Formats: sequence, C-alpha cells, structure tokens
Amino acid sequence: MASPGINRDRLWQAHMDIAKIGATLEGGSRRLALSAEDARARALLEMWCADLGLKVERDALGSMFIRRAGTDANARAVAFGSHLDTVPTGGRFDGVSGVLAGLEVLRTLEEAGMRTRAPLELVNWTNEEGSRFRPAMMGSRAHAGNLALDVALATTDDDGVSVADALAATKQGGGAAPAPRDWAAWLELHIEQGPVLEQTGNDIGVVTGTMHARYLQLTIEGEPGHAGATPMGRRKDALAAAAEIILADERIGKAAEPDGRSSSSWIDSRPNARGNVADTVYLHCDVRHADQLVARKMEHDLRSVITEVGLRRRVDITLDPYATFGPIVFDAGLGALLRRKAEERQYAVTNSIAAAGHDSVFVAPLCPSAMLFIPCAGGVTHNPKEFASAEQIARGAQVLLDAVVELAG
Amino acid sequence: MASPGINRDRLWQAHMDIAKIGATLEGGSRRLALSAEDARARALLEMWCADLGLKVERDALGSMFIRRAGTDANARAVAFGSHLDTVPTGGRFDGVSGVLAGLEVLRTLEEAGMRTRAPLELVNWTNEEGSRFRPAMMGSRAHAGNLALDVALATTDDDGVSVADALAATKQGGGAAPAPRDWAAWLELHIEQGPVLEQTGNDIGVVTGTMHARYLQLTIEGEPGHAGATPMGRRKDALAAAAEIILADERIGKAAEPDGRSSSSWIDSRPNARGNVADTVYLHCDVRHADQLVARKMEHDLRSVITEVGLRRRVDITLDPYATFGPIVFDAGLGALLRRKAEERQYAVTNSIAAAGHDSVFVAPLCPSAMLFIPCAGGVTHNPKEFASAEQIARGAQVLLDAVVELAG
Repeated sequence: MASPGINRDRLWQAHMDIAKIGATLEGGSRRLALSAEDARARALLEMWCADLGLKVERDALGSMFIRRAGTDANARAVAFGSHLDTVPTGGRFDGVSGVLAGLEVLRTLEEAGMRTRAPLELVNWTNEEGSRFRPAMMGSRAHAGNLALDVALATTDDDGVSVADALAATKQGGGAAPAPRDWAAWLELHIEQGPVLEQTGNDIGVVTGTMHARYLQLTIEGEPGHAGATPMGRRKDALAAAAEIILADERIGKAAEPDGRSSSSWIDSRPNARGNVADTVYLHCDVRHADQLVARKMEHDLRSVITEVGLRRRVDITLDPYATFGPIVFDAGLGALLRRKAEERQYAVTNSIAAAGHDSVFVAPLCPSAMLFIPCAGGVTHNPKEFASAEQIARGAQVLLDAVVELAG
Repeated sequence: MASPGINRDRLWQAHMDIAKIGATLEGGSRRLALSAEDARARALLEMWCADLGLKVERDALGSMFIRRAGTDANARAVAFGSHLDTVPTGGRFDGVSGVLAGLEVLRTLEEAGMRTRAPLELVNWTNEEGSRFRPAMMGSRAHAGNLALDVALATTDDDGVSVADALAATKQGGGAAPAPRDWAAWLELHIEQGPVLEQTGNDIGVVTGTMHARYLQLTIEGEPGHAGATPMGRRKDALAAAAEIILADERIGKAAEPDGRSSSSWIDSRPNARGNVADTVYLHCDVRHADQLVARKMEHDLRSVITEVGLRRRVDITLDPYATFGPIVFDAGLGALLRRKAEERQYAVTNSIAAAGHDSVFVAPLCPSAMLFIPCAGGVTHNPKEFASAEQIARGAQVLLDAVVELAG
C-alpha cells in the first residue's frame, strides 16, 4: 500500500495553534505538565481527534491514547507519539512535533480514505519533561512498570500540589492504571535537540539508541563566613569547591568526545548573599556516553575529583547518584525501515544517538521501538528560540507516515 | 569624671529581648529593614528610651536619633550606635550589639545619676544590611549626602514595595531630610565578623580603618543547549565560564594574603534546569585590600582573567563595577582613646581593620569617627550561629562608655 503525502502547511498550522497555548513573550511556550495550559493543549488535541471521529482514552496518570481502528480486529496496534508538555522556558517543537506528526499521520490517512489492517494509536505522554513533577518521563515510566502509580500520584510540585490533585483539577485522570498496551511497534518523532543533523545537512536521523547517563546530585557543605572579614585561609567556600567540580566535570566530558557529554547544569548556592562566603552549594552533575562502560569510567573519574576537592578544601561533600538512564538500543529492523522510507523519499538520512531522555526509552523494552530525529536550528532547545522549519517537520512526518503504513499494512 | 561600670546582665538581656523579634527556628533573627519585625524592634528600643525619659527623633528615612541632653546647651553631641536590621539569615549580634551597647551607656549614666557636659546621641541607622533594599548602609549614606533622599525613597524590594511605602506602613518615616547633625565625634561598636580577635585572644579591636573594596557584577552570556545532546565542543557553557572566574577570584585573594580578600559570593544561573547547559550566569565578585593600590591591582588581575575566559570560551561577559567602598582611615585620636580606655580596664586590645562595610564608613568624613570590634565565635556572622558572649559584649560596652564619658566630659 503506497502512502499519501502529508500536508505540510496543516502540520505547521497545528504547531502554531498549539504554541499559542501558554505562549511566552519570548516566542516560546510554557505548558508545565498538568497545568491549565497543558490541559488546554490536550483539549485542542482531543477536539482535532474528534473531528476525525476518534476518541481519547486516558490512563490514571492522564497519558492520552487515541486509537484508529484497523480492518483486522485481532491485529496489534502500531503506536506513535510524544508529549505536549514543556519546560518552563519551552519552545514550540520539543515533544509537540512528535504528537502533531502523529496527528498528521491520522489526518492524512483519513483524508485519503485509507484504513490500515492493524489499528493505529497516537499517544500524548503525561509529564515527559519533569520540570514540575519529578521524575521526568513519568507517564511512560509508569506505563512500563518503572514507576508505581501511587508514588507518581503522590508526587508534589514546588507548591505542594500533587499529581493526583493536578489530574483532578484539569480533569485529565482516566480510569485504568498505566500498563503496557500490547503494541506491535512504537515510533517517536522528535527534534534532535542537538546541532549534528543541521551541520551534516541531513533531514532525518535514525536513532539507533540512547546514551547511558548518570546523574549525581551533590551537597557541598563549607562554613559560613563574612565575604570581607574572613581571611582567605580560614574559609571553607562551598561555591569555590563547586567551581572546581564544575570544571572537572567539563574536562571529563571533553576528554570523552565525540561520544561523551557532561554537564553541571543546576546550582543552588546558599546563602547567596553578596556579603557571605557560600556555606552550602547544591550542584547537579551528569556524565553520558554511548558506551556504558565509558560512562561509568567518567563517573568514577568525577567521583575521584569530588573526593579530592572535599579533602583538600575541608568541605563535606555528599553525593546522591539519583538517576541513570539508558543505554537503550532501539530495534534494528525498525531503524532499517525508517532509513529505507527516508531514502525512498530521497531525504538525506544518517544514524543518530539520543543523548537526552525520551519516552521511547521506557517503551523500548515493551515492544519493537525506534525514534527518528529531525533537525532543529543550531541545536537550540528548551528555549523560546527552538526552531524546526515546516519543511523539516513535514519530512519527518512523511517518514513516520510511510513507516506506519508499511507496519500496519 | 570616672565612669561607672556597665551592667553586663542587663545588656545581655536586652540582646535576648531584641532577638525574640523575628526569631528564627535556627536560633537567629530575621528583621529585614523596615519590615514588621524591624518596626517591632524599633518600638522596643523606643520604649526602653522612654523609660529613660528620652524621646526618639526620626529622619525621613527612619533612622532613629535618641538624644540625652548635656549640661552645656552649646556643646556638640557625642554620637554612637549601629543598626537593628538583619540579613535574612541574621544572627543576634551584628548591628544589634552596637545599638544596645549605646543604650547601655545611656542606662548606666542614668542609673549613676551622671550627666555629661556634651549631649549624647544614640543612633539606629535604617537599612544597614541592604538585604531588602539596595544599597546597604542606606540611612547613613543618605545622612552623609552620598545618596539622594528621593532615590532612596523610590527604591523597591523584590516584591515592588518601595522604601517610602515601607516607611509609611511601619510608621517609621520622620519629617527631616537626612543630613549631618554636627556631632563632635562618632563611635560604633560592632562584632568583628571575623576570627582574628578570638584567635589572638583579644577583647577589643580598635578599628584603624576599612579595607578598600571593589565590587563587580558580571553577566556571562553563553548559548542555550541541551545538556545531553549538545556536543562538548559546541557548547558555550556560562556556568563553566563562571567557575573559572570564581577560582581565579579566589586565587587572587589568596595571593594577597594576609591583607587581601576576595569573594564570589552570589550566583544566579539560568535556566538552572538539569537538562540545559547554562546560557546565562550572573555572578558577583569582589576584591578587597587594606591598600587601595593593591586592591586596584587585584581588580585588574581579575579583569584580565575575565577577558581571557570570555575570548577563549566565546562567551560574552559584561562587567559592572557597581560599587566600591573605602578605604576609610578612622580618626587616630579616637583610636588612641579607645585603646587607652581598653588598657585602663586591662582588656587585651589590638588594632583591627574592617573588611565589611559599616555605617561608620559614611559618618567618618563628617566628624572624627572610630569603631571598636568585639570578638565573635569563629568569626561566624550573618548566620544564626553568630555569637558573642555576655562578657565580650560587656567589655566592648564598657570601653564605649569610658570613651564617651571622656569625650563628653
């Protein structure tokens, strides 16, 4: 069955319509998970699906499943999607493009009057970003049995509002506990969030897998002191200790190029007063590498530096290795299919590796899964300047449609 | 005229009474300038002064002046005091001890039935700390003509409340514009806020002057990026750039020991999200030295590093040298008087230099001025653990009283 061409302008317009919800002055969108804005974006998606005669099913964490029946009632569904929630300084494409490309797949098939053999299922996962409620990828985690429903529901945001409260307030909670849905395959389109596709002139990145990431949360405890009165030799400056660790983390990432990454991306210095030596600093460090063993070596090297800095500076450093993710190797057959579909359309295609977390990381153990990346300008993401062109998104959606049609028959 | 002994226990009790106002769970006090707590502490001081038959006069910024008449109506007043406001994580002694030692001077003289020839004036300066309203030392600055009244009144806190509003809400604003009051001399007792007196076993530090301090506010602009997806070589990590500057600032301070200090004490990293490379960091750095030329050299060295870091890392760094203070050389005659009074009481006395800002810095150009330091435990300050013993405070207050009695005749 040959697949029809997707409608580039309709797909772009859908992006712009969603972007208006929670639009920021800087040109991005702010739709924290299960906020009023998130609920409005979900309502718009639901309305668009209703226009296609499709109903939305929600699980108990609010993840949305939109099923289009196939001709074979016994066939397992081909599923695809991503997320509509954003980080506080979100852009218009991260997650959104995956959901809307999936919607465009459904719209194009409906318009062409084509029905697949297997059912199709479009998914909007709840709280992929994790900015309001931790952990990130909450909906897909729970779906995969990686996070207990009661734990997820009890999680609170910084204002003390629980996921359960937010679900009730936004009317997003469904009946069924999150659980695997016996899919035949899972596909996710996402912006690359890096600059490689753009730099190498590729339209499509077939994501072969994810990096292995190790997250460390540090608490560095020095000693209070006056920024003027305390002699240098008497100080236990927690911020200066943090500075050494930040630079060591960066060195370790650079030494592991091109497949290694490291970031010290979050810091909270106390008392953060211009007159006081910092007595306590909280710092987030991570290391990532495509090779799990190398990532562990990077973490080991970072821990060695942390120990040395703590001893030399007489500051107490406690270390919470609070999360890891990956490595995930995505399904090679699905990857080959995506590549072939891109090549049939004469799109420039290359392999990519995902350095960020995605819902697909949690779906991958449940059924054959793959991701495809589209370029984004300058690799900028989680930022109002995040940008993918109508043409770039359309090419990705076309590959998604072509692959879905072949899989679903 | 020989001076009577001050009442150690009464002075201590006054500290404990004031400390209850805005008391924190950690054992400190939080009385931000012109807050409800600050107003209550001021009311208590006013009540205590009323018990002595003394009235409080306020200037238009709320600085409190409590005058005790002398026998010579034409003599210029001997003034002393400090401030009752605290930083958010304030202790019980910074500023407070200077005001209450001054109160104890008045109480002791009253109790002894002694009247000096010259009038005495106890002062509580508004907003010494600058935690809520910038700049610090607002009351004494305006008093000295260093800050215009309308500018001070229009200054807003983080909630948009102006000094004028806060003065009105707390009924602290008086009629007269802040202006010099033609004092014969000014004395301020303060905790050292450093560990030197304690380490050297001294009771009293005669403050010969203040360091020269140079404050720089940096804005470091890198580039947004995903903490995983952006290759190391492509990053413009503003937090890593800040880390280099923090360590350089520290090295410059250490190289200038024992009379040099440097601190990078305040940082704000954006977007401060675990998934994003820091794109913008705001950083406060300072350098201080007793010798103004050395302080300038330190600043020059720091600026050189900042330029080099900016070029090498391809980040934009803008630098606002937003404040300097000092050096101030306090009146040598008053310093000698304080030393002699301490020695007469057989207290261990040494010279000190102030590395922090104090109201005395602004009073010093107006009339002969001096400060005396008392030890504080471990040099810890701006912290609930800030501590000076009843005996340590009493010795300082005794020297203050003895000096005041000699000056006022």
